[in-house]
Amino acid sequence: MGRDGLVRRLREIVGDRYVLADPADVVVYEADALPLTGALPDVVVLPGSAEEVAAVVRAAADGGVPVIPRGAGTGLAGGAVPEGGGVLVVLTRLDRILSIDPRARLADVEAGVVNADLNAAARPYGLTFAPDPGSQAASTVGGNIATNAGGPHCLAYGVTTHHVLAAQVVLADGSVVWVGGAASDAPGYDLRGVLVGSEGTLGIVTRALVRLVRLPEGARTLLAIFDGVEPASRAVSDIIASGVVPAALEMLDALTLRIVEDFVHAGYPADAGAVLLVEVEGVADVLDRLADRIRALCARHGARQIRTAATEEERALLWKGRKEAFGALGRVRRGVYLADVTVPRHRLPEMMRRVAEIAARTGVPIANFFHAGDGNLHPNLLYDPRDPAAAAAVARAGEEIVRAGLELGGTITGEHGVGLDKREQMRWMFTDADLEAMRRLRRAWDPHGRLNPGKVVPQ
Amino acid sequence: MGRDGLVRRLREIVGDRYVLADPADVVVYEADALPLTGALPDVVVLPGSAEEVAAVVRAAADGGVPVIPRGAGTGLAGGAVPEGGGVLVVLTRLDRILSIDPRARLADVEAGVVNADLNAAARPYGLTFAPDPGSQAASTVGGNIATNAGGPHCLAYGVTTHHVLAAQVVLADGSVVWVGGAASDAPGYDLRGVLVGSEGTLGIVTRALVRLVRLPEGARTLLAIFDGVEPASRAVSDIIASGVVPAALEMLDALTLRIVEDFVHAGYPADAGAVLLVEVEGVADVLDRLADRIRALCARHGARQIRTAATEEERALLWKGRKEAFGALGRVRRGVYLADVTVPRHRLPEMMRRVAEIAARTGVPIANFFHAGDGNLHPNLLYDPRDPAAAAAVARAGEEIVRAGLELGGTITGEHGVGLDKREQMRWMFTDADLEAMRRLRRAWDPHGRLNPGKVVPQ
Repeated sequence: MGRDGLVRRLREIVGDRYVLADPADVVVYEADALPLTGALPDVVVLPGSAEEVAAVVRAAADGGVPVIPRGAGTGLAGGAVPEGGGVLVVLTRLDRILSIDPRARLADVEAGVVNADLNAAARPYGLTFAPDPGSQAASTVGGNIATNAGGPHCLAYGVTTHHVLAAQVVLADGSVVWVGGAASDAPGYDLRGVLVGSEGTLGIVTRALVRLVRLPEGARTLLAIFDGVEPASRAVSDIIASGVVPAALEMLDALTLRIVEDFVHAGYPADAGAVLLVEVEGVADVLDRLADRIRALCARHGARQIRTAATEEERALLWKGRKEAFGALGRVRRGVYLADVTVPRHRLPEMMRRVAEIAARTGVPIANFFHAGDGNLHPNLLYDPRDPAAAAAVARAGEEIVRAGLELGGTITGEHGVGLDKREQMRWMFTDADLEAMRRLRRAWDPHGRLNPGKVVPQ
Repeated sequence: MGRDGLVRRLREIVGDRYVLADPADVVVYEADALPLTGALPDVVVLPGSAEEVAAVVRAAADGGVPVIPRGAGTGLAGGAVPEGGGVLVVLTRLDRILSIDPRARLADVEAGVVNADLNAAARPYGLTFAPDPGSQAASTVGGNIATNAGGPHCLAYGVTTHHVLAAQVVLADGSVVWVGGAASDAPGYDLRGVLVGSEGTLGIVTRALVRLVRLPEGARTLLAIFDGVEPASRAVSDIIASGVVPAALEMLDALTLRIVEDFVHAGYPADAGAVLLVEVEGVADVLDRLADRIRALCARHGARQIRTAATEEERALLWKGRKEAFGALGRVRRGVYLADVTVPRHRLPEMMRRVAEIAARTGVPIANFFHAGDGNLHPNLLYDPRDPAAAAAVARAGEEIVRAGLELGGTITGEHGVGLDKREQMRWMFTDADLEAMRRLRRAWDPHGRLNPGKVVPQ
């Protein structure tokens, strides 16, 4: 079966209008949100059901062609880039919320449901899907599962894997299985757990049973203003050590504050050295006491001002700058390379010193805004993508940041996934034997290496 | 290599005194804590290091003999029973706590470290290893990992998998790998997650990096006394629905209360229909408010009395009855078969009605004390093991309980594992395709099926 035969068969499966084979249509899908040179898929297909996904996978297998799954394309690691061509399977048409069970606090959703849409549907029941990646207005639950996405509130609630009870998965041979179950801690091997974060290399998630959590009775949002990153980092350490677990604990550095304030007008102090955005949630009668503790700890580390949102509008405004920071950076410099290093959180002050040193030495401007409570840094390396020398300098500086994080006991990616971008860096973290154990697992489920080849595990 | 040759080689690896080949010595290891007929291993070996474990696994592979790992033998599902003979590898000599890092809140321990010993070592730093199975005074961290053990406080803290960051594992070919990493959410496949709970069928854990959590500043322990299981179950539902997450939320029914009080003298009301043991933990200044909420909810569901522990001694006494309940049952009836069904917690009242109906119809006395907050039931079926008819009735009643739990959306085992006991019940929960996905994983790592054969996945 040549390309034409494959395209014909795909049209039979999903209908003509859901197969894109014209280069002008296909080019839209050459990259995700990672600023890397993309690669064109041979054909793009948009199936409308799990059965259609399975049939597409079987057709591709018969044609000996790889399959690359894709959600909304908001990934930051090139996980949905079809490096060596193949059939790009776009799951956005699987967008039905099949049921919400408020008693059991579960939602049964198709993989292409947008994170924010699930939240909007859950809100009338007083519930929410906890993972809140920056992309949540566009990214899909399936994509969140594929990358094991995090977000600001994952400090208190855990990352995506903690909120997925079961998933329907199309395997490389086109068979359809369920992993996990409606009750927590399903018996047998935790295939659910190994699938979450596998970036489409073990199977294609078509549907999931996800946990919903109760919206808190209330929240207090604080903005603590510091003269520099170091005292703010020490305040983070002390807040965590105090035993209070904030729902979110975010830091924005001086460069980020200036850029964000110019564009977003969130009322952030443009002359500060760093701010902490801290949110505590929970039952209403304990919130003020928790907020008092946070304020006292920030004051002890020299916070020059601490603002508390008094209304829901003020709370939304404090968050606005954080949520729109990535977009604001993109408006200043067209090229933003977002590193995604996590370090043990007590190493945060040292890691921030190293990032500043790398920025100074390489001349690459680095804006930091990140999940400080998790130790999950997001140094944003800014550059002009039309300048090849600048892009090369960014690649080198990014590598130095990752190596510095590893030296401090950290990891090459906190929440964005490995994809193409971090594939070779996997060797910096894992031994050959470790990587071979991953390859064995992959071969067990996909002996011909047809699912999203080249991603996650280096060959 | 015959048995004699294998025994000789094992003696060379670990030293004469750590190989038991005499039937009189071996018989001690024929069973774990499940009251099932056991099976004798061919030889028992007690290695002293990961290297020795690896060498033992290679020797067994050369001899074509299965390897069955075992910790303290407290498992309740027959997971450490050598069904078809083989080399039983007992890991209790790997009992070193290699380091405790209070800043990073991590402990690096060998697999044979006893759960309670790790807790004792962590306590001076104000830290604890959260999983607290009933067996914690004897069971090992390695065994907790193999079964993904739970415990009363796992309601708030999560089960073992949430507290294991990385593990050193001997694979079926004798290679040694690390899975996971010191930072949360290691990149690549979550092999760590799939290994936890795999009951020694994918590899033998020899060492682990585990998370320690901060001991709470304080706790309030409440005992709420009800006239029956149903109002107590409704109180459980309402407590969870209120948004308060207690650290523990345990129920004891009337039969358990009478038996426990006779033996333990914990001051439990022997005439009550059920009690809830509720513990809230956290920062000191919010505890009383949380306790007030719990009291109000219990009162609304007709609790006739609510006691609050005023001192650490009173707290320990309230817990004593719960912690010693299993032992007390064993003193009344020599045979206790402990079922381990979890249902979605809003189905708890219905499930309790069904268990009572099964007890009444079959004539098997069933004592219930369990992790109500998790929906994790522990119906204890009491019988005289010298009476074959009674044992058969217990087996039938146990099966009915599991089927009732599945009908309510539950699972065949909440925390004790599958082992031999629940192996065939896996077919009730999973399709052939689901089970085949598990088998593929197993074959990938253990192509000859030498690691703990016959456990977890039915053939």
